[in-house]
Amino acid sequence: MRHNRRGERNLLTVTIGVIGGGQLARMMIPPAIHLGLNISVLAEVEGSSAARAADAVGDYRDPETVYAFAETVDVVTFDHEHVPNEILLELERRGKQVHPRPGALQYAQDKILMREKLAALGVPIPAWIATSNPDELSSFIAEHGGSAVVKTARGGYDGKGVRVVDTAAEVNDWFDGLAEGERLLVEEKVNFVRELSQLVARRPSGEMRSWPVVETVQKDGVCAEVIAPAPVANATTLATAAQIGHTVAEGVSVTGVLAVEMFETTDGRVLVNELAMRPHNSGHVTIEGSVTSQFEQHLRAVADLPLGSPAMTAPVAVMVNVLGGPPEGTMSLRYPEVLSQYPNAKVHSYDKTPRPGRKVGHVTVTGDSLPEVRGEANACAAAFL
Amino acid sequence: MRHNRRGERNLLTVTIGVIGGGQLARMMIPPAIHLGLNISVLAEVEGSSAARAADAVGDYRDPETVYAFAETVDVVTFDHEHVPNEILLELERRGKQVHPRPGALQYAQDKILMREKLAALGVPIPAWIATSNPDELSSFIAEHGGSAVVKTARGGYDGKGVRVVDTAAEVNDWFDGLAEGERLLVEEKVNFVRELSQLVARRPSGEMRSWPVVETVQKDGVCAEVIAPAPVANATTLATAAQIGHTVAEGVSVTGVLAVEMFETTDGRVLVNELAMRPHNSGHVTIEGSVTSQFEQHLRAVADLPLGSPAMTAPVAVMVNVLGGPPEGTMSLRYPEVLSQYPNAKVHSYDKTPRPGRKVGHVTVTGDSLPEVRGEANACAAAFL
Repeated sequence: MRHNRRGERNLLTVTIGVIGGGQLARMMIPPAIHLGLNISVLAEVEGSSAARAADAVGDYRDPETVYAFAETVDVVTFDHEHVPNEILLELERRGKQVHPRPGALQYAQDKILMREKLAALGVPIPAWIATSNPDELSSFIAEHGGSAVVKTARGGYDGKGVRVVDTAAEVNDWFDGLAEGERLLVEEKVNFVRELSQLVARRPSGEMRSWPVVETVQKDGVCAEVIAPAPVANATTLATAAQIGHTVAEGVSVTGVLAVEMFETTDGRVLVNELAMRPHNSGHVTIEGSVTSQFEQHLRAVADLPLGSPAMTAPVAVMVNVLGGPPEGTMSLRYPEVLSQYPNAKVHSYDKTPRPGRKVGHVTVTGDSLPEVRGEANACAAAFL
Repeated sequence: MRHNRRGERNLLTVTIGVIGGGQLARMMIPPAIHLGLNISVLAEVEGSSAARAADAVGDYRDPETVYAFAETVDVVTFDHEHVPNEILLELERRGKQVHPRPGALQYAQDKILMREKLAALGVPIPAWIATSNPDELSSFIAEHGGSAVVKTARGGYDGKGVRVVDTAAEVNDWFDGLAEGERLLVEEKVNFVRELSQLVARRPSGEMRSWPVVETVQKDGVCAEVIAPAPVANATTLATAAQIGHTVAEGVSVTGVLAVEMFETTDGRVLVNELAMRPHNSGHVTIEGSVTSQFEQHLRAVADLPLGSPAMTAPVAVMVNVLGGPPEGTMSLRYPEVLSQYPNAKVHSYDKTPRPGRKVGHVTVTGDSLPEVRGEANACAAAFL
């Protein structure tokens, strides 16, 4: 690990250390500055999205790198779920605050553990099995309408590590690659009308706050658009989503922000699909759309400070991802035209080199009219492509 | 000058250099991060309010320090008006973009030049003279109701360099201290019902955007509270304030944010009191209260990017300064109690050591009801004292 630009540290104020230098760490910097909390990032590489707070650069899989970084901060939190759990358990043994705690984070790191836990909590989930046996997958497919969703237990994100299959042979390579004791997660393919995401924040002391449930629109397995609050959600759906969020947050003792991604089914049920224990793409809309953004709330939660109001600042807020970005380079090259056309849009660039499908930024618009707000946010984001 | 923590610089994106590391530079960092513009600060000292972006530390009065800093950025702008004009003129001679330009900034640096310019622009101002002669001051006092406001032409801020006098003898020390050719500014003491502030942003290309005029409440010469929009302002007052803002911005060819502080008189006139050519305390309320904050707008303006909407995000927004701060140390020490009591308040700490009367942070509340919003913002700010 190399320490390159140690920020002056106000010793009277908590220093929050973030492992990972992606856009989530990047977007924690503004609320840290406003609240006057110190933030310090361990980034993977120079020139990361969170470079402005990257006081250290190193490999988060290397125990000594993480231990040395943790020595410089009061609380350790994350931009992603990939830090090995044994490293985090050792940090706790050494007396370091880690939020979310490794005992909670394991459920976001391993989808089979997550399904087992959600089942134990009595939360509605799709039918599922965990197996290393292609014949069991074939039987499951036969019993569930001729198809199934197969997921690797670890390492997947944004549609990676997920395949919808009609035959077991379609994931032969995954079965062949399993280590001793490893299994794949197999789930029924849910007929859903749409996807919802419930964000909750929870402090170590137990205080929780929930944002209104949002609708998420996926493209090719990647979050493309988020509508807050979820349109025409009936009171039952809203209450069910919030209740599930609370049950999961408390059940796994999460600290920080928890995202519970859910399916709303054709028959009106809500089933939990995925969990994330960090600020989440479905919560970017809270930067402008809520009194307290998910990034500010995450900082408050992991520092065990009282949580802020998650109330919306406007009747409607819509966020659209900029996926891929302008072929000629960074989003800012398009600012002369795009900012001129969309003076009401809040434009966020992650300072990333565009690649097809890569999340390089997002746009949020707030207002009173869903069709207008949605139209403007989508048009503005599209103008960057 | 010492370069201590050079941020990785995206060469495809403009780098905005800010001279001065106070809270104004600090609050430019969040919108720079969101928009993906590089920001780099030349701070006076280590551990400044803007330390997170302070890539250089040095004396802004030293030409070589400023020239070397300017070499590392594309545009130079300011946290304060105190950089000597001749240094900025030399930067322009060397081809560097400087915003606001030295030709505009002189009017914010010298109150006599400012009065002369405003008079030439036909903008309503208090009666005034510039003099080095105590007898002329005595005559002015006699002609203007027995008192006058005397100001040093340079270096004043937050009530410093301003005295209300009944006799010339009360500023004998200032007269004695005048250098050859220097004069004091003498103004009538205006009977005002309240103070207003009109913020305008202007790009080098000439595009301008105005926020709704706000009411400012001063305590001991320091801005204490800002109410947006100015309550019960009649249409004439609103239009007059906006018109004055435009006339001044265009008249002095300002680039960036301009604050025009004004008196609303007992007889319904609006008179210009002071100018500031940078984000201003009366505009902190725009961080949450407007679609585009003064800090984001300043960055857009000095980078000659299209300006964002200055529309309000709520019917009412009130900002209250935290003056002095908690005696035991930084504001964050009070967070466990204060954030718990005021979940709707947006709390901003400048990471400064408290001293009596020092601006160490501010609180903003937005909402529908002026009495409620005002009450909550004031109570929250008071809880830090």
